[in-house]
Amino acid sequence: MTAARRDALRGLLRAAELDALLVTDLVNVRYLTGFTGSNGALLVHVDGDAASRFCTDGRYRTQSAQEVSDLETVIDRGSALALARVARGLVGFESGHVTVDEHAALCEAAEHARLERAPGLVQQLRLIKDDAEIAVLREACAAADAALGDLIAAGGLVPGRTEREVALDLENRMRAHGADGPSFETILAAGAHSAIPHHRPTDAVLRRGDLVKMDFGALVGGYHSDMTRTVVLGPAAGWQRELYALVAASQEAGRKALALGADVADVDAAARSVIDDAGRGDEFVHGLGHGVGLEIHEPPALAKSGAGTLAAGMAVTVEPGVYLEGRGGVRIEDTLVVRAAGPELLTLTTKELLEI
Amino acid sequence: MTAARRDALRGLLRAAELDALLVTDLVNVRYLTGFTGSNGALLVHVDGDAASRFCTDGRYRTQSAQEVSDLETVIDRGSALALARVARGLVGFESGHVTVDEHAALCEAAEHARLERAPGLVQQLRLIKDDAEIAVLREACAAADAALGDLIAAGGLVPGRTEREVALDLENRMRAHGADGPSFETILAAGAHSAIPHHRPTDAVLRRGDLVKMDFGALVGGYHSDMTRTVVLGPAAGWQRELYALVAASQEAGRKALALGADVADVDAAARSVIDDAGRGDEFVHGLGHGVGLEIHEPPALAKSGAGTLAAGMAVTVEPGVYLEGRGGVRIEDTLVVRAAGPELLTLTTKELLEI
Repeated sequence: MTAARRDALRGLLRAAELDALLVTDLVNVRYLTGFTGSNGALLVHVDGDAASRFCTDGRYRTQSAQEVSDLETVIDRGSALALARVARGLVGFESGHVTVDEHAALCEAAEHARLERAPGLVQQLRLIKDDAEIAVLREACAAADAALGDLIAAGGLVPGRTEREVALDLENRMRAHGADGPSFETILAAGAHSAIPHHRPTDAVLRRGDLVKMDFGALVGGYHSDMTRTVVLGPAAGWQRELYALVAASQEAGRKALALGADVADVDAAARSVIDDAGRGDEFVHGLGHGVGLEIHEPPALAKSGAGTLAAGMAVTVEPGVYLEGRGGVRIEDTLVVRAAGPELLTLTTKELLEI
Repeated sequence: MTAARRDALRGLLRAAELDALLVTDLVNVRYLTGFTGSNGALLVHVDGDAASRFCTDGRYRTQSAQEVSDLETVIDRGSALALARVARGLVGFESGHVTVDEHAALCEAAEHARLERAPGLVQQLRLIKDDAEIAVLREACAAADAALGDLIAAGGLVPGRTEREVALDLENRMRAHGADGPSFETILAAGAHSAIPHHRPTDAVLRRGDLVKMDFGALVGGYHSDMTRTVVLGPAAGWQRELYALVAASQEAGRKALALGADVADVDAAARSVIDDAGRGDEFVHGLGHGVGLEIHEPPALAKSGAGTLAAGMAVTVEPGVYLEGRGGVRIEDTLVVRAAGPELLTLTTKELLEI
């Protein structure tokens, strides 16, 4: 599986007329090799795996032998430098990841190679998830869905608990459903706090009548799920119901716009126009969504300023929100996969307004 | 407090003959301003705060007004680029943090300034913790101590539970004692797993007779504590007792070597020689310790390859370990502050061998 990814990368290397790529971004190293340690680098040579090298330090000798069994491994503490020393020809480096100081050291080490900026090559491959990746993402989404379901069923989402308690409860329930942990810092925002897009859980107590916005996800096998649900504790007030219906309509429009070949800015516009038309455009203060995978935020950006078009196998979030300062906000977010037949929902929790 | 830090930085700028420093590493931005958001940059001008600027994006308008009330703030999404545009003269940048691509963009934006590599200036200040920092570190260490105490008192460290359960229990207890979360991924390693220096908790079940190594810490107000204790479940076998005594003696020697002006490599050697003399030098496979603060690993490195000398106010760990593959390992670690009168222990849990 990782061998096929390295082969795909070679296509990009040939197009860029590079002899090799020095991969130092650990997420990309993991994608191309399966290595999960904290120090490693990879030299992918255009001529094939026999000419390529993986490098890590002594702590990972056993682990790398298991995880990266199909590549010759060099054990050296300064992994990228060690690979730069053995590189030959015109070698791309990940200029969006390598620091200026690291670059100076690599140039010094690369006595037999010329280093050239080659940003984003592996990211380009990672845009399209293969079936194995989608299967893991589906598990990650399911763990988050199940945790929220459990939380509600167990009476854990009720007045009297603090934002912090509920956030932790949700995280622990994701772990109980197989997550290695949360995929990012859980946002749990009650009452007026729900109007803060990236609110950190506090000791504020949930109260009857509050909107409660929960933005959270599970980390499974390195893959990040991402979902948001907003509920009301008790019967919803008219304005809450109205706000919810608006965001739900926008979210649906965004999901429907996820078509092959669609421009990402148009997808954003499809959802945004629903909110604009309601005169609330100024209160939808962020982009519509983003790619998810080995990182919680990946290309493509579904945003006004985003560039590019959708293709089958992209995994993205759709998450419009409207935030009324001092009163409350609603955000609804799913993770989906772009498919020829229309988007596949990975987040399966209902989007009906829940009054708990 | 942060104003005094910016003044101290100006001393370094004058010595380096720089007109200003463009600070883009968020940890350094936080240190110099108190800002805790996820996007921000700071231009510290040698002429004073009136000539300096902070920049963040619209999401943090309210937060930055509270946290960075003493600096003129520019609201702009591309925070470092916005500051590069207004910079004048010879401006240092954090070349150990800025990527090659970011550097190219900064150079383009800096029409009226010349950018020069200036790595590690703020890190140099951060080496010496001020009283406010030490107070927070002390709280972080206390939260970890209290969590371990509670875990044992509550009967949570017993045969039959899994490594994963105990690790999570420990983390939740740190939160209950005021931690924002764990300061790094908790290491909980039982039986033969304790011989793996950086073992990740698994579903392996703790058994009577096991060595259980717990390496964990609490995050409080941005500061990271770090401690390791190794216990035995039930009465210790002779070899466990012997191994423990050896590591404890090494750890004590390391702590005693924490004197003002001591070379960091000599501190490592003081602890290492105890283990070397016992013929177990090959089984102590890592450095003796590291600085802690706003990051879990900071300078100075107390290691063979470390350079520099100790000064009052440095916060460091001392953590020798001996690992017998397939049998078990022992590591004992405290966080301490270097003081003229001898090191101050921030980790207060006993280092007696606990048989639980």
